[in-house]
Parts: sequence; structure tokens; C-alpha cells
Amino acid sequence: MSAHDSAERIWTAALLVIGDEILSGRTQDRNIAQLGKWLNLQGIRLREVRVVADDAAQIGQAVIALAASHDYLFSTGGIGPTHDDITVDAIAAALGRKVVVHPRARQMLEDYYGTPEAVTEARLRMARVPEGADLIENRVSGAPGIRVDNIFIMAGVPAIAGLMMEALSGTLQGGAPLISRTIGAWVAESEVAELLHRVEKASRNSQIGSYPFFREGRVGANFVIRSTDADDIEAVAASLTEALRALGVETTQGGI
Amino acid sequence: MSAHDSAERIWTAALLVIGDEILSGRTQDRNIAQLGKWLNLQGIRLREVRVVADDAAQIGQAVIALAASHDYLFSTGGIGPTHDDITVDAIAAALGRKVVVHPRARQMLEDYYGTPEAVTEARLRMARVPEGADLIENRVSGAPGIRVDNIFIMAGVPAIAGLMMEALSGTLQGGAPLISRTIGAWVAESEVAELLHRVEKASRNSQIGSYPFFREGRVGANFVIRSTDADDIEAVAASLTEALRALGVETTQGGI
Repeated sequence: MSAHDSAERIWTAALLVIGDEILSGRTQDRNIAQLGKWLNLQGIRLREVRVVADDAAQIGQAVIALAASHDYLFSTGGIGPTHDDITVDAIAAALGRKVVVHPRARQMLEDYYGTPEAVTEARLRMARVPEGADLIENRVSGAPGIRVDNIFIMAGVPAIAGLMMEALSGTLQGGAPLISRTIGAWVAESEVAELLHRVEKASRNSQIGSYPFFREGRVGANFVIRSTDADDIEAVAASLTEALRALGVETTQGGI
Repeated sequence: MSAHDSAERIWTAALLVIGDEILSGRTQDRNIAQLGKWLNLQGIRLREVRVVADDAAQIGQAVIALAASHDYLFSTGGIGPTHDDITVDAIAAALGRKVVVHPRARQMLEDYYGTPEAVTEARLRMARVPEGADLIENRVSGAPGIRVDNIFIMAGVPAIAGLMMEALSGTLQGGAPLISRTIGAWVAESEVAELLHRVEKASRNSQIGSYPFFREGRVGANFVIRSTDADDIEAVAASLTEALRALGVETTQGGI
């Protein structure tokens, strides 16, 4: 692939968040935002997220659909030692693979818990992987993440999932990183809707998102310009700032 | 439907979160947890969530799939006045309906902005609904939510979405509310995995989720018992507490 092709191809990813605790509202998900930001830096676009229960059929269906329609699929949750941790079995079943104990993962657990005997049947669950899978090692958890085909199986605890992303940084093929710039203004977004649309249409390849807020008794909005093209973002930021000023609206670079 | 049937039927919902800002990681979603908790109280189970970009095809596809497979579909995001607010058009297109200005919604905007003239073309976008839709009024926002068939279109800003849920409280048919009870213990979940599985299997209709944490230099876990049956939750809580005590593990009722 030429440098030109590689700059134009958009690499996409999906995330499958697994866990009753997210759907019941008990646990506030943090992995969607964390993965989205990290993928931007890898030059990969997070295009879709699904959240499903600890239910093998639901997990399997989502894995089949998402792994086929994106370059990469990530999952978070359900890889611990308890009975509700069914992610590995569900994904293996969806892929038609056996579940095996990965020797290196077993070794990591033995090192973590001190002796082979301390790796009980429950703990050994954390060394089980779909046959043919690789591990995503990380510097804290005794239980690694798992890579199988284009699927990356990560922990649900955000700090551990973050370490797994760190371990993967720079190892995945992607395109140009998505960058963004934010311009804030104390203006109702409905007053500048036309203007935003016009500036976006005139841009080379930037999108402008408008995010209203109500703060200190006043309405305002942040306008986020996103593109893979830093020059275009500069140009759009300049023309947006200028157009707002022409309406008498002062802007705050970096957002409010 | 008899009282008995109605207690047994499980009512389900899906949520479609719409917005580039969630996928890019710029905005931390709060609506999944908020809707999940609110639905528990309505006796409706949140079974699946999808997050998609501001993209009409992606929105339409998800709406068709989710509205057909659940009793209720909720959406959040993309109903403001700017060019990236395409939720109403995308859902109307997916349902094969025209988009029309709802007279009551236009009136609400006129009241909110003070005069008919202040309702500019951009602001009038917020009165547009799929033909045949009803409004979800709320006591703060001039822009109402929208109900069409079994689909509830809500704002993305969590405070406004919350007011729309409040307006819907008690109006949707559901089953018995899902309730939960949490028991915390300073124990590695891998040490009690067997025990949890055994207590859950012996229960009438409760699920036990295990949520490990690492705090103050020690490992612990919260065990969440969920059921629609308050008596069963009591019984499971008692036998779990007893089984942990037999292992020498003290518990904290309500969780740690």
C-alpha cells in the first residue's frame, strides 16, 4: 500500500462492553471514552459500541457481527475467575474454537500467586483462551488480556483495561491520527447553526460538532473541529472564529 | 393478562446512544447508567445498548434492529438545532415516515423564546418529529422529547434526558421492578468463586454478580444479588453471608 493509500484508508474499530453491572446502572462505564481517545491516537476510528449482558448468545452474536464489519474488535469485561465471567467461552464458541489453558498465562498466574498450588481451579479460569490466541501482557495484572484474530479481549476494570491498551500502543496498523480543536463561545447554538453548517461545508475534510451547555446562568457551546488534517483544522478554526466575531460573538480558543 | 402472567413476563428495552462525541471519547456518557437505573424501577430490563456516530445509515440500521427485538427503544442525543443533529430525520427515514413540524412543539418553542419571530429556522428544527409522533414534555427544556411507536427519542444532555425519564415515570407497562442487594467482603473473588456459583445455583431466581476492587492496598469484592423477588434476595443474602463466615470472611452489608 502506498503512503497515499494508507493516509486515505480509514481503519475502524468496534467495542463490545460485556456486563450486567453496566446495563443495570450499578457501574458507570469508563472504557468507551478511554478506548475512543486511545484509538484516535492509533489512527483508528471507534465506529460502534455495543453493551450486552453476561449472556453467551448475546455476546456471540455481537462478536460475529462486529468482528466482520470492522478492522478491529475490542471487548471489555467478563474475564475474571467467577461464574459470571463467561467472555472467553462465549467468544471461543462464536469463533468455533476450543478453549485451552495458555501455558504462558498459567505461568504468569503461578508467578503472581507464588506457587502452582495457589493457582486454584477458579484462578486457572483466568489462563483460559480460545485456541490459537496470543496474550496481551501488562505490567500489573496477573491475568493477561487475549488477542485472537482481530479481536482484543480486555479486562472490565478501567485501570487494567488502560494498561492493556498501553501494551498495545503502536502495535496496530492504523491511518492518520484523528485530531481535534475546540472553540468555545457564550452563544446559544441555535443562533449560529447556519454559520456552523456553512463553515463545515466549506472545509476540506473537517467535521464540526456543537456541544451546548448551561453554566453560571448563561448558555454557551463548544464547537469541536475534528479531522486527520492539521492544516485544515487550522483553516477551519480561523474561519469559524472570524465568522463568529462578525456576529459579535467572542470565542475562547481551547473551549470553555 | 393475569397478575401471574404479568409478574413473569420480562419487559425489555434497548438504548441507542447517538453521537460522535461519545465515540471519540470527548464526552463521557452518563445516559446508559441513568437509563438502566430508571428502567429497573419501571420493571423493565435494559438488555442492550448501541453507540453509533452521527450517521443516518448507522442510526437507521440500529433503530430497525433494536425496536423490533425489544419492547421499548430509547435514544439519546442529536435532537438539537445544529447540522449534526440528525436523529429525527434518520429515525423517520428508518420508519418510512415523513418529518413534520409538531404544532404543540412549535408552541412550546414560541413560549420558550418569547415570540414566534424568535423561533428561527434553526430553532424550528427542534419542533420537527416523525409524522404521528407524540411529545415527551418536561419542565425545563423548550425542546421536548418524542415518542413514536415504541421508540422514545430523548436529549443527549444527561440532565435533560433525566427530566424526560421523569416525565415518563409510571407511564410504561412493565413487570416487577428489579431490585438488588450488595454484600462486600475483603476477599479475593478467586477464593470464593465456587461458593458464589453454588449459592446462586441454589437460589430461586436470583443472580449474583461479583465485582472485585483493589483499595487501601487490599483486594476485596462486592457481591450484588439481583432479582425481582425480595424474599429470594433476603434468603440468598443470608446464605451467602453464612457461607462466607464459614470460610472466616466477614461481610459488610450494603457493600464496601
